[in-house]
Amino acid sequence: MDTIMGKQSICFQRPPQIVSAASVAGQKEGEGPLGALFDEIEKDPMAGQATWEEAESALQKRAALLAMEKARRLPGPGVPPVRYLFSGDLLGQLIATSFGVMDLKLPLFGLYGACSTIGEALMLGAMTVQGGYSEAVLALTSSHFGSAEKQFRFPLGYGGQRPKSATWTVTGSGAFVLSDSGGHAKITGATPGRVVDYGVKDSMNMGACMAPAACDTICAHLEDFGRKPEDYDAIVTGDLGTVGQKILIDLTAERGYDISAQHQDCGILIFDPEAQDTHSGGSGCACSAVTLAAYLLPKIESGEWKRMLFVPTGALLSTVSFNEGQSVPGIAHAVVIEHC
Amino acid sequence: MDTIMGKQSICFQRPPQIVSAASVAGQKEGEGPLGALFDEIEKDPMAGQATWEEAESALQKRAALLAMEKARRLPGPGVPPVRYLFSGDLLGQLIATSFGVMDLKLPLFGLYGACSTIGEALMLGAMTVQGGYSEAVLALTSSHFGSAEKQFRFPLGYGGQRPKSATWTVTGSGAFVLSDSGGHAKITGATPGRVVDYGVKDSMNMGACMAPAACDTICAHLEDFGRKPEDYDAIVTGDLGTVGQKILIDLTAERGYDISAQHQDCGILIFDPEAQDTHSGGSGCACSAVTLAAYLLPKIESGEWKRMLFVPTGALLSTVSFNEGQSVPGIAHAVVIEHC
Repeated sequence: MDTIMGKQSICFQRPPQIVSAASVAGQKEGEGPLGALFDEIEKDPMAGQATWEEAESALQKRAALLAMEKARRLPGPGVPPVRYLFSGDLLGQLIATSFGVMDLKLPLFGLYGACSTIGEALMLGAMTVQGGYSEAVLALTSSHFGSAEKQFRFPLGYGGQRPKSATWTVTGSGAFVLSDSGGHAKITGATPGRVVDYGVKDSMNMGACMAPAACDTICAHLEDFGRKPEDYDAIVTGDLGTVGQKILIDLTAERGYDISAQHQDCGILIFDPEAQDTHSGGSGCACSAVTLAAYLLPKIESGEWKRMLFVPTGALLSTVSFNEGQSVPGIAHAVVIEHC
Repeated sequence: MDTIMGKQSICFQRPPQIVSAASVAGQKEGEGPLGALFDEIEKDPMAGQATWEEAESALQKRAALLAMEKARRLPGPGVPPVRYLFSGDLLGQLIATSFGVMDLKLPLFGLYGACSTIGEALMLGAMTVQGGYSEAVLALTSSHFGSAEKQFRFPLGYGGQRPKSATWTVTGSGAFVLSDSGGHAKITGATPGRVVDYGVKDSMNMGACMAPAACDTICAHLEDFGRKPEDYDAIVTGDLGTVGQKILIDLTAERGYDISAQHQDCGILIFDPEAQDTHSGGSGCACSAVTLAAYLLPKIESGEWKRMLFVPTGALLSTVSFNEGQSVPGIAHAVVIEHC
């Protein structure tokens, strides 16, 4: 098989491995269905800092350090030190990242893919490792309910009513060390996504905004690799929520792919919508990142799943574009993760 | 030589080439010292659109299409079609990029490095081409005076007084097609930068904020490659301006490198500070991108310069971080471009 697969995919000939993962989550996430699986739960929404943005930076730094510490503790010949960092977040000008990673003193590739950022980071990280540009890299992202509400919506004290299609931004950070060897999960393929716009303008229904992009990337992936949904134990999107999930399954069916048996969504997995009042599900860069680190990756590492398609999804809007009447396009990046 | 060079650099064994470049600039830039060199000058600040943000998107799309058209017109066996896009801008959540590249229908790696973005895009693009992940990629960025002032400063109608250390955001977009062969400039090395914070809090003096990062990257680069400033015909930073230039030359001298003979700055090259009232110089993602496309790259392609170090610089701030009293850290990414 070639490295270049079909229209827009990559097949890794020497698949980089995910050698360690770390998840730091907030209190609400800790009370959800995955609560017992996170490495750390930070009960203070401010994480001991003065602002939500600084809190988010602190979570990102903590997840990064923990993933690197786990990589150092691995048995065997040892993982080389991390050389490059691939990271981003939801905030304007990536301030959670810039201030979060500063103390790590590592060269930074700043990324923005909205809530799909960890997919972009894992793809570029794997491309960097296989390309021989670095023996180990760190893929990292974060989000924070408080900083995201402040960035995109209303002051928390306003107490606005949220529609049933709205999602709840996950507070937390996920970090992954990639290297040539040392892990039990490998990245064997990737399908970077395109910007897809169905003209949806409802920023309180981001699942509907992102589902067409998820469909575009998943179908392109299956076509490029000549695979069927059954070739995956799971096809896991980032944060479509219950509303977006239904749209995705309908849209892929129209393209001839029935993914209903394989599809899961991190936004649905991370909260209990009844008990936690989270409506359509979780969202934010951290949603897919901490769910991968805490819940999905262990299934691959143990061999319970042989192969998954991990497809973080992002809604591409800002308050400026929204207030100027623009639609909310989506993007989704797909990463193939297999047991090894 | 190894691919991995020293502490943080990459040496490309099969250097990807810059096979085409396009520059689209605004009217003020067209009236500056480089005005005659730009491919296109857009005299309408709105570029026929309804908002500054849409105008910036339009410039980005136009530069992208022009660079790809130039690549198609090259004599010889022809450059393969662009497969991936690396792009970013200054606006929150990269809206200039998302809406600008949508119609291109290419997989997008969204990047944020503030005004250093074209450096990050060229590095990742070169890594992608040499890694065999794509036969051709597009590196792209944009900025717009109106959208940047709205994002970061005051309403234009307010007519605020600008201090002498302030820079003027360049309106324009630069685009570069990278591929295995077909050009007369090659990317032979890269030094991705770290976030460097000297604690400067003055967002009207971004040259001072970014100079320490430029120093950090340039010195790391020279050490990693075992080179001296004289090994370069030019060391060109992005948008330090006259204030930042002086600081950079002092800081590198303290580290034992006298770069005063080689140093140039795109922010100083692009405007005439007296005639154009631009104070310290130009800035913005487009500043270094259009200066590279229109002025620097032709010097390499013609052989007038054999080797340059291109070091776009970025100031990492948002209005949120600034209003919360944070400093303005900097980042700088260095790319070695040589004649071939």
